[in-house]
Amino acid sequence: MYIIKIGGNVLDNPERLQRFLIDFAALPGPKLLVHGGGKIASTIGLQLGIQPAYVEGRRLTDAGTLKLVTMVYAGLINKNVVAQLQALGCNAIGMTGADANAIPATRRPVKKVDYGFAGDIAGPETVNANAIKALLQAGLTPAFAPLTHDGQGSLLNTNADTIASVLATALAPHYEVKLVYCFEKKGVLADAEDDDAVIPHIDQHRYSSLKADGVVKDGMIPKLDNAFAALQHGVSAVLIGEAEALPSLATAQGFSGTTIALKHG
Amino acid sequence: MYIIKIGGNVLDNPERLQRFLIDFAALPGPKLLVHGGGKIASTIGLQLGIQPAYVEGRRLTDAGTLKLVTMVYAGLINKNVVAQLQALGCNAIGMTGADANAIPATRRPVKKVDYGFAGDIAGPETVNANAIKALLQAGLTPAFAPLTHDGQGSLLNTNADTIASVLATALAPHYEVKLVYCFEKKGVLADAEDDDAVIPHIDQHRYSSLKADGVVKDGMIPKLDNAFAALQHGVSAVLIGEAEALPSLATAQGFSGTTIALKHG
Repeated sequence: MYIIKIGGNVLDNPERLQRFLIDFAALPGPKLLVHGGGKIASTIGLQLGIQPAYVEGRRLTDAGTLKLVTMVYAGLINKNVVAQLQALGCNAIGMTGADANAIPATRRPVKKVDYGFAGDIAGPETVNANAIKALLQAGLTPAFAPLTHDGQGSLLNTNADTIASVLATALAPHYEVKLVYCFEKKGVLADAEDDDAVIPHIDQHRYSSLKADGVVKDGMIPKLDNAFAALQHGVSAVLIGEAEALPSLATAQGFSGTTIALKHG
Repeated sequence: MYIIKIGGNVLDNPERLQRFLIDFAALPGPKLLVHGGGKIASTIGLQLGIQPAYVEGRRLTDAGTLKLVTMVYAGLINKNVVAQLQALGCNAIGMTGADANAIPATRRPVKKVDYGFAGDIAGPETVNANAIKALLQAGLTPAFAPLTHDGQGSLLNTNADTIASVLATALAPHYEVKLVYCFEKKGVLADAEDDDAVIPHIDQHRYSSLKADGVVKDGMIPKLDNAFAALQHGVSAVLIGEAEALPSLATAQGFSGTTIALKHG
């Protein structure tokens, strides 16, 4: 099965989103979508007087921000994605980690920074894989907004990359899972200035040297860390590329972005 | 099974909502929740510069209002209800009529009034009862926000009473369905000035005379019309009362609000 994570840059662009959803709907077999946030949350937040605040690339989630992301991620974005997928013949069901208790999490402990209502997922073993399997077996395509819950009545804002990775790992004992991160570049780039300098394959050894050389940095590091964690726990492939690469998954040449593996032959 | 509709007046009051959700979670057997909107949509709408407009008690849904209700009904309210139910041990899954294609609808045709993105449901036969059954059989409790979709990619704002009635009718061939409307009064009142003047039973004959006498009027008429429509199509009972009456469903005396039936003995 495919687990596809789609980032905010595509969600912010109605035409790209529509094209992506057409490609997603056309993927054969069981599949699952995880979507991120996008700029619209900040735009609506400003209208509501909620100022975005970040530490190390992670949004601080105070009570107002939690309300905002619940409205925008789980409401506006998620339900419009579902309605569009339905129009494309894909029987989507929109969810957060609270729905069907799919992804229990814990509020991030306060150390140097209080991230507020930010959720950490203990691990793939806490995911309610049976509930997700029941939905897939009923012919449904779960579409996840990046929220979890603490089991005590509170939603928690949670990184969408992490959700995708954890879901892929939790479903790996039940399906042959390919995890695909769609983001704003064509893949992991050997040269940040050259959009076509896609590195086709990265294994653990290569990853170490790419990090040491500073080729891979910033937001790519948690993404690749998540990828390797998923591979180490049974996910069969992790692919990173632009949304437009989705149809290339099924071609003879294979995926046009970067394929991550523990070890390349 | 129970299908419970909970109105905005309870959603607007955190303590009443919490008490209601405790009672709902305690109901035995398969069950389903439908929630309305509440004042919070108008409050947030004003902050976003969206003015509420109504004709004959129905909200006009322009593009901005559709965004607003998608955020507030399907996001903020629905997901907080789900998270709270999960904390109470009720395995809820939040939905709109777009999710799992549960409730297809059509945009209301423009006659004298253009209601905008308001959805009309052709009838219970359009409901995807099998999808809802699959969720119930997986041990899940669907919690519906009052939105449907047109099958062409657009969400539609839809009356929550109607959704409850249509779902009850669609599920009646599969379950013995009791449909319960929780609203701001103890039941249908014989005297609008006396909150305790609950009419315990109303059948079709009585309904005609209550309407003729002007005892039943305004918002009660569509509610009771929906109730009788559901009974005529196989729903086993329709009950109308305050949220606090939910535990009385299971007592020896029975429901403390108004019980609607086609014909009372």
